[in-house]
Amino acid sequence: MEHSLNNSRDSELLARASKVVPNGMWGHMATRAIGPGYPQFFSKSDGCRVWDAEGNEYIDFMCAWGPNLLGYKNAEVDAAALAEIANGDINNGPTEKMVELAELFVDTIDYADWALFQKNGTDATTTCVTIARATTGKRKILVARGSYHGAVPWCSPSVVGVTTEDRAHVILFDYNDATSLDEAVAAAGDDLAAILLTAFRHDLNRDQEMPDPAFLRHARSICDKTGAALILDDVRAGFRLDVRGSWAKHRVKPDLGAYSKAIANGWPLAAVAGSRRMLDGASKIFTTGSFWYGSASMAASIKTIGILKETDALAHIEAMGARFRDGFASIAKGHGFVLHQTGPVQMPMLRFQDDPDLRIANAFCAAALRYGIYLHPKHNMFLCSAHQADDIDQALEAADKAMKDIAHLRGA
Amino acid sequence: MEHSLNNSRDSELLARASKVVPNGMWGHMATRAIGPGYPQFFSKSDGCRVWDAEGNEYIDFMCAWGPNLLGYKNAEVDAAALAEIANGDINNGPTEKMVELAELFVDTIDYADWALFQKNGTDATTTCVTIARATTGKRKILVARGSYHGAVPWCSPSVVGVTTEDRAHVILFDYNDATSLDEAVAAAGDDLAAILLTAFRHDLNRDQEMPDPAFLRHARSICDKTGAALILDDVRAGFRLDVRGSWAKHRVKPDLGAYSKAIANGWPLAAVAGSRRMLDGASKIFTTGSFWYGSASMAASIKTIGILKETDALAHIEAMGARFRDGFASIAKGHGFVLHQTGPVQMPMLRFQDDPDLRIANAFCAAALRYGIYLHPKHNMFLCSAHQADDIDQALEAADKAMKDIAHLRGA
Repeated sequence: MEHSLNNSRDSELLARASKVVPNGMWGHMATRAIGPGYPQFFSKSDGCRVWDAEGNEYIDFMCAWGPNLLGYKNAEVDAAALAEIANGDINNGPTEKMVELAELFVDTIDYADWALFQKNGTDATTTCVTIARATTGKRKILVARGSYHGAVPWCSPSVVGVTTEDRAHVILFDYNDATSLDEAVAAAGDDLAAILLTAFRHDLNRDQEMPDPAFLRHARSICDKTGAALILDDVRAGFRLDVRGSWAKHRVKPDLGAYSKAIANGWPLAAVAGSRRMLDGASKIFTTGSFWYGSASMAASIKTIGILKETDALAHIEAMGARFRDGFASIAKGHGFVLHQTGPVQMPMLRFQDDPDLRIANAFCAAALRYGIYLHPKHNMFLCSAHQADDIDQALEAADKAMKDIAHLRGA
Repeated sequence: MEHSLNNSRDSELLARASKVVPNGMWGHMATRAIGPGYPQFFSKSDGCRVWDAEGNEYIDFMCAWGPNLLGYKNAEVDAAALAEIANGDINNGPTEKMVELAELFVDTIDYADWALFQKNGTDATTTCVTIARATTGKRKILVARGSYHGAVPWCSPSVVGVTTEDRAHVILFDYNDATSLDEAVAAAGDDLAAILLTAFRHDLNRDQEMPDPAFLRHARSICDKTGAALILDDVRAGFRLDVRGSWAKHRVKPDLGAYSKAIANGWPLAAVAGSRRMLDGASKIFTTGSFWYGSASMAASIKTIGILKETDALAHIEAMGARFRDGFASIAKGHGFVLHQTGPVQMPMLRFQDDPDLRIANAFCAAALRYGIYLHPKHNMFLCSAHQADDIDQALEAADKAMKDIAHLRGA
């Protein structure tokens, strides 16, 4: 499986797109923001594999940037969703599936006493902030510098088209830094509504950091003292690391949690889960969307969470992630590269040492594409339960060839 | 078809939901915000009919609050979407369907030179505002008092959990009132970014108003003079009145338009369409979402728009709307009620004269439910192309019985 970088079908589609779409493509999947050599368009996906518009096949380590958790086109999940579509996905209200899914959230997520459902991760984080303000009557939201919480003015990584007032009540601190958090709390004075944290530090183009349990406990105790909400943004990591919520193993319970991505194995859904203390605020705010009550995505989520609870899917993903990480470490060593592999193995991050302009990472990922594996040079990646040992080993063989091809960049 | 108001299955589901969902239900489909007697849960939908959790069948005039345009479970639309799901809906980038859909938007919508796709109507209106600010470098957004543009802090009909700063740059005016608009423009000074208008005035619990073409031309000329963006919020009306955009017949072209609801006949999708003048701003902002690039909803939209362009579906909906309106006028007259029927016939609004507390409307709609038609006492309704003359006539018979039942409220 070796592909030519020549992908005329992709170029043709991109040329057509450039005439009718801003920049030919917008958002996080725009390849100009990823690196050279990436195909912009795809033609199909299955299990842990994707095919570009030209028909080139890749072992995929982005999983559609998270949603693919149990394999693209997981038969059980899709069957559950398609049964709802055959019955009529949308209606003038929800079906029983909404109740079942909310009950399943409450049964499954360690801090959840209730849940509500939406479509985008940004819907969920924005609603958490609104609920925190409604519950506390306070305004300030503490956000870690560099954390991604969505793509609307209050939290977008871009400030183009954003006004100062959109972020008037956002105060920044550094993730895992208790002193910095204390300073932000002091700056909030008696107006602290919430501390908002991603499950772990998974910022773009930076080594990942697991949360320091002592830091999480400190944040929890601030919220206990002040009445502010501790919000877990579990959009990216949720259901991939731990079905109970990504902080369950740290024994720190947030007041509110935001979910999306893997929640329904690719069917569009997001959720807010919350504790009883946040129920009053959640009951008073208004949040809604035209497609939020469709039952297909809810049925997909019920099946996804069911599989996670009844099978060893998450343990398998973790084992495959460890195999991937160990293999990469060994390959890098063999070629004399120092590789930073950080964060949970299920969501790998690869960074080459002494590569500030990503010259090595971009060259490596472009070479990897030619050998049939789809990696990302500066964003965390994702594994899914469809990755088997053979897929990982095949990917590692490809990575070995790709690293050999770029060995001349070592220490250059 | 006469139902008992006793719906034990609905009560049972609502009791379960009340334990795990804020208020048992959130958002616009929460029946406590609609009126007494409404079923909260549904079990299936087909064509122009919906079934509640108990299995009671209704001829439906809400169309899932807009998304149902060509009939629930439209076979052609669903087949197009399901083919994409069979192929893998999501991926690390879009499929060719994104390009096809953007090209179709540009070919179809009279002012569109480009398009981008999202999931919620609120995504689209928020992005229009952000693009307007990015393009103009100005901040003030003029919004008609009482218009609904979404459910996030800058525009939500609720201010619970919303800060003053969220709306710092929103200036209100009255729809169709040029003097009021001029005052808002003056208040914006040299900081005017956009004038945001719904396709027509379709505010809750208020007679609908078609836009005054002279008012639209006035708004257009202000934007031409100042460089501000004229934004058409076509989320609710888009593709139901005119496939070219809801202002095409008024010959006023907005700079930006927001779409959702009927865009893909119930498959979750939203869109922003824009003119060349807005392309630079659209190319600079960052907006994205985890599920925005799935091809199933895009294929559904391509098929939906194709059907609208190739068949007389919209003319049929208009004819059915006229039959519904004429029938209702005659029934009301027969029972001595004065009924206000306003706005486009495709999106009927029924209001009883001298009914400030909705006592008559609520009693009528509850009675109508018993006779098997699902109406709304204070929100505009929607027709779809699956409504046939027989359905309308059957609904009118039911409405006649319902109005007879509430005749004692006349002039009370």
